Amino acid sequence: MQRGYQVAIVGATGAVGLELLNILEEREFPIACLSLLASKRSVGRTLSFAGQGLPVRELTEQSFDDIDFALFSVSALVSKAFGPIAARAGAVVIDDSSAFRMDPQVPLVVTEVNPHALRRHQGIIAHPNCSTIPLVMILKPLHLLAQVRRVVVATYQSVSGAGARAVEELDHQTRALVAGEPAHVSVLPQQIAFNCVPQIDAFGELGYTGEEWKMVRETQKILEDESIRMSSTTVRVPVFRGHSEAVNIETVHKVSVHQVRQLLSTASGVAVIDDPEKSQYPMPITAVGRDEVFVGRIREDPSHDHAVNLWLVSDNLRKGAALNMVQIMELLCAEKRR
Amino acid sequence: MQRGYQVAIVGATGAVGLELLNILEEREFPIACLSLLASKRSVGRTLSFAGQGLPVRELTEQSFDDIDFALFSVSALVSKAFGPIAARAGAVVIDDSSAFRMDPQVPLVVTEVNPHALRRHQGIIAHPNCSTIPLVMILKPLHLLAQVRRVVVATYQSVSGAGARAVEELDHQTRALVAGEPAHVSVLPQQIAFNCVPQIDAFGELGYTGEEWKMVRETQKILEDESIRMSSTTVRVPVFRGHSEAVNIETVHKVSVHQVRQLLSTASGVAVIDDPEKSQYPMPITAVGRDEVFVGRIREDPSHDHAVNLWLVSDNLRKGAALNMVQIMELLCAEKRR
Repeated sequence: MQRGYQVAIVGATGAVGLELLNILEEREFPIACLSLLASKRSVGRTLSFAGQGLPVRELTEQSFDDIDFALFSVSALVSKAFGPIAARAGAVVIDDSSAFRMDPQVPLVVTEVNPHALRRHQGIIAHPNCSTIPLVMILKPLHLLAQVRRVVVATYQSVSGAGARAVEELDHQTRALVAGEPAHVSVLPQQIAFNCVPQIDAFGELGYTGEEWKMVRETQKILEDESIRMSSTTVRVPVFRGHSEAVNIETVHKVSVHQVRQLLSTASGVAVIDDPEKSQYPMPITAVGRDEVFVGRIREDPSHDHAVNLWLVSDNLRKGAALNMVQIMELLCAEKRR
Repeated sequence: MQRGYQVAIVGATGAVGLELLNILEEREFPIACLSLLASKRSVGRTLSFAGQGLPVRELTEQSFDDIDFALFSVSALVSKAFGPIAARAGAVVIDDSSAFRMDPQVPLVVTEVNPHALRRHQGIIAHPNCSTIPLVMILKPLHLLAQVRRVVVATYQSVSGAGARAVEELDHQTRALVAGEPAHVSVLPQQIAFNCVPQIDAFGELGYTGEEWKMVRETQKILEDESIRMSSTTVRVPVFRGHSEAVNIETVHKVSVHQVRQLLSTASGVAVIDDPEKSQYPMPITAVGRDEVFVGRIREDPSHDHAVNLWLVSDNLRKGAALNMVQIMELLCAEKRR
């Protein structure tokens, strides 16, 4: 391999792990050595990267010697156990789990929104939830322009947000049901094929789920403003890939739909698709494989003087996960070169 | 057939038409003669009712002689053309389309919410949109208790709301995609299998769709209060049957979650399924074939002092359509007998 960085992917065989391989290759990230780590049961598998087959090795405490960047996409439990080990071994950890997101010592970063937060990292950088990332990319420019006061959001989240096994489960359940057979439920909490499930993660405070609280608290942390009020309803839908969100945004200062459309048209990493006359709006099937957060259906809220409604869609495995992780790594490399 | 009423179903071969047959049979509505009407291309078909095969006949201007009740579930255009003809012939028309809903002379009725409005009918009674009905059944008791000020709703609507051909389309597209073949789009505006489509009906004022405005204006008419402010995002999801809604409700007077749960537990036609600890909440697959509007995920809104969030699901072909139409007919019969 060419000269560059020593990179480890922890959870390489998962949905995000596989997308990390795609994105590292697409963006030609300078890699000297790529180490693919996973649990014992994936050992023996070979994954393809840049025309080569790379072996999957078992994650151990010794996996991080000489690693520059360790990209973690595993459960919060595994991240909590191995993240600090990797950081102590000298790697910069970029973690996709919820393990460190709300730790005040750990920056929580979306590269277009709060890149400055990277500077104060102490070896571990947290990557937000896949439904938080597209939302803050829309909210940040609006907050700068008109101060976001309150957000009410309802999500339409794909099964890939729950990992590769949930993707298989939707596929299996769908095939069973169209064949007139019963759907077997094992990974997700309920049948997802031809259904909507208003539960993502476990239930907690006030009856909101972990996913719903993550959206609220991560948004406040990333936008560095705890005065932003927010409530969320997160729902799993029978879509393989691409998270959608119906968002109602109330601002302190009045903004017109025209202003919002203009603002978001020039926002970094955001693409506006909003031509109702031609039935043009974002959808999961049009966002898959794309890097941008797509926004459409931008309209004034007839029920509130200072509010707008909009609809956003993003590929939850790319900007919602692997892409943002690689972009964080790219920013850190650019800083080093300065 | 037994002694009873002369009933005509206009659009008998459609998704709602077939459900009307089921419900008339289940509820043992007293029918003397049932006339099944449809467009010319359905003539020759036979539909089963109470153990008999009944022929489908062509809808003509002469179809309504001696009919007591004409239940219309056809396009607004056909309703506009034939509804007044049926009414002039002496039938009471109960119309499922948008043709007459906002006509000030026409009552728009949900039997549990505003049955009193039936008294002033002049031959035509409008039946609300399938996403409005469950919403007003939840809002009415809350409005009486605490005065609803503002509603922000995002819907998750099944394909059966767009008729039997849309149901077939989801089935065909799903089978094609799992077989690795392309999905053919003809009935709905976009591919619906494994996708979310934020368009139901045509686009209109302020960039909202017809469906979105229907929810707002029908709610105000049924609750007889134009001061209720509301904004809606209506989305088609790959579900065969059962409409879900994520609803944020702001009230003038503060209500607790406990009060809301108690209030809705005793509301007519409403069933509360709300036990997060046991992962109990309503879903489309549990609402199918049921008469009740199911509500769950009732929780206070941390972003607003006077607001609650909740999640509702109803069978759009039953209470959202056929059941409410039959209940309107039952109420009119009970009035006559007084």
